Amino acid sequence: MNFPSKLIENAVEELAKLPGVGRKTALRLALHLLKHESEDTLSLAEALVKMRTEVKHCKECHNISDTEICSICANPLRDRSLLCIVSDIRDVIAIENTSQYKGLYHVLGGVISPIEGVGPSDLHIDSLLERLPNSEVREILLAISPTMEGDTTAFYLTRKLRDFNLRITTIARGVPVGGELEYTDEVTLGRSIVERTAYGKI
Amino acid sequence: MNFPSKLIENAVEELAKLPGVGRKTALRLALHLLKHESEDTLSLAEALVKMRTEVKHCKECHNISDTEICSICANPLRDRSLLCIVSDIRDVIAIENTSQYKGLYHVLGGVISPIEGVGPSDLHIDSLLERLPNSEVREILLAISPTMEGDTTAFYLTRKLRDFNLRITTIARGVPVGGELEYTDEVTLGRSIVERTAYGKI
Repeated sequence: MNFPSKLIENAVEELAKLPGVGRKTALRLALHLLKHESEDTLSLAEALVKMRTEVKHCKECHNISDTEICSICANPLRDRSLLCIVSDIRDVIAIENTSQYKGLYHVLGGVISPIEGVGPSDLHIDSLLERLPNSEVREILLAISPTMEGDTTAFYLTRKLRDFNLRITTIARGVPVGGELEYTDEVTLGRSIVERTAYGKI
Repeated sequence: MNFPSKLIENAVEELAKLPGVGRKTALRLALHLLKHESEDTLSLAEALVKMRTEVKHCKECHNISDTEICSICANPLRDRSLLCIVSDIRDVIAIENTSQYKGLYHVLGGVISPIEGVGPSDLHIDSLLERLPNSEVREILLAISPTMEGDTTAFYLTRKLRDFNLRITTIARGVPVGGELEYTDEVTLGRSIVERTAYGKI
């Protein structure tokens, strides 16, 4: 693609480095910015730079945070006996949005994936094992996606956590709320029958 | 969505203002930037700000440009007797990429659209009419999308250009190269028959 301006070409090339943004989309974004007030572009650029340079990772749980200790770890109302292990910051946001979890988190920063060259030492597993002895944690909730890599990571963790005398749980697998039985895959449906729960109060 | 960091929330909100970017995509972009070197974010921000603050519009044709007069208008090899009228900068880029056009351009900056409150005075039509008398232009090529608004704009322009004694042409409508007759809509197929062209050399 030939651009009539080097400045635009530069901006398009930078935007096209973002995931899911090709050169056509990048051009559309650049022209959108050109059409609107320059303050909009300045505040976008400032927000990005501020985020990238000032955001911290919580020393306790490795969640992103504006402070040394994140707002969840610092919150005295959270249940310190329950620790949820997730692979990614996005999982923390997803679980927080349910408002159903009141414990603490530990963000691994990925999953074990030999194909991508990610081993246990690349994840925040050491800091988890250091954190546990001096903590009030009684239960570990493994909330890791049930993929091949996720299951490997969960299995590795359960082996490492064996000696800590903790209750280890995992998020329930089953038919999604609102999901049709007919269209549920066999493994999920099978597991939802084996791990059936009490019907609840009537 | 609750974010563990105000800085991220800010960045996500700014990114989500871009067209086609929702809050989930914005979060993905923000986390992508956080995962990579901070230089990447800085150069993205710098490229955007530089583009927005330094890019000019060509005084002649209103194309985007790094200089007062764009590289197309300044190019002595372009055919100054042919002027292509387009609605948008993207159309210039698209036509330039064909390498089939060697004339000059005039960018209207939109099309007449009463619904969106865009009238002829909001477009660069006055500057077109001022530009023509002192120019070498002999032919006007209307390359405006064949939508309701585009056709209205083209019709308005032909009325305004009537007194200039110019040849007025429009881009050919027909079956796209590689297109199947069977799947071509009736209006296009009908027009491609009425406006049939010589078969070319055998």
